Amino acid sequence: MILCDIGNTTFDFYKNSTRSKVLIDDYEDINSNDTVYYISVNEKVSQRLKPYSNWIDVGLHVDKSRFYETMGIDRIIACMAVRDGVIIDAGSAITVDIMKDGNFMGGYIALGLEKSASCYMSISSKLHGSYNFEQDFDKIPKNTQDAITYAQLGLLYKDVVSYNLPIYLTGGDAKKLKSVFKFATVDGDLVFKSMLEIIKGADLC
Amino acid sequence: MILCDIGNTTFDFYKNSTRSKVLIDDYEDINSNDTVYYISVNEKVSQRLKPYSNWIDVGLHVDKSRFYETMGIDRIIACMAVRDGVIIDAGSAITVDIMKDGNFMGGYIALGLEKSASCYMSISSKLHGSYNFEQDFDKIPKNTQDAITYAQLGLLYKDVVSYNLPIYLTGGDAKKLKSVFKFATVDGDLVFKSMLEIIKGADLC
Repeated sequence: MILCDIGNTTFDFYKNSTRSKVLIDDYEDINSNDTVYYISVNEKVSQRLKPYSNWIDVGLHVDKSRFYETMGIDRIIACMAVRDGVIIDAGSAITVDIMKDGNFMGGYIALGLEKSASCYMSISSKLHGSYNFEQDFDKIPKNTQDAITYAQLGLLYKDVVSYNLPIYLTGGDAKKLKSVFKFATVDGDLVFKSMLEIIKGADLC
Repeated sequence: MILCDIGNTTFDFYKNSTRSKVLIDDYEDINSNDTVYYISVNEKVSQRLKPYSNWIDVGLHVDKSRFYETMGIDRIIACMAVRDGVIIDAGSAITVDIMKDGNFMGGYIALGLEKSASCYMSISSKLHGSYNFEQDFDKIPKNTQDAITYAQLGLLYKDVVSYNLPIYLTGGDAKKLKSVFKFATVDGDLVFKSMLEIIKGADLC
């Protein structure tokens, strides 16, 4: 079975527990006969895929009313994999969602590591865009790198641990954030595992 | 007396309690005979000003050892105006510094409102770059605007109030942040008032 998580810039495929990414502009195999179960936050690509009966939109089989109207389907699907926990999906944005007793409590959207680092650089070259992932956030920073790290990761860390829930890390930067959230579970395939459950539950295959 | 706070992009003048800003590239009056007391975080401009004896670098008369080596002189000067408090200087970056009993405890550097908003837009047009300054940060967000505001301002708010100190707002976005930090004192001229104290203390005029 082929799964695909379509983002703003890439097709992220999952087949036999193996991942492969293709830039949207580079992808030419939409016409192949393979059945692909997908979710998409990319409206343009979603429209392009509609005529192809072998591309099956898993998002159509999800009860979105438990979440909020404009919430990205990737966030919703990741949340559905967790009964109690904070789900951090670290990509171009870092989404943080809180699930309690299987209910969505809310969430927020921070800037991704690479995006925020380049934003600092655009303010001043002195705000060099690298983070200290080993920083002790109990201390108020006294150097530039720590001052930036504290703002982007320290404040996030303090909020996330305040919920006293298990923490799940997914997305491209999950491993980097593991240094900050030392007790978190890293699961880069959380979205795909959740998609598989939904596909089974809805008898889509 | 003319004071000037030189940033990355502007000369910010203060004369008879009146402010005026000039883009660095547009400023042509360096050769005038007026005496200008200045601070600068802009190394290039600092070098240009060195030959002019009527441009007096106030930063040279500050004991920087109480702070840290690479800390911007504008942050240092603002801190020197406060004995106990959290000083938030909201411009292209938002600096947050903590002073207790006249001692610098540390600080951090978040992204400015405009910078972070345009960074969200660069990720996806769905992450429209405007903030909800009236948001209740006790609730976890359930819509996109609040989700972004919570990440950029909610986490900041929670950290700042945790110090239980008076809050001082300065910089171009101070008035916007007043909606978030309702009990804060807004003083857009904090840096200049502090410069005046230093100039008097060091008998520079």
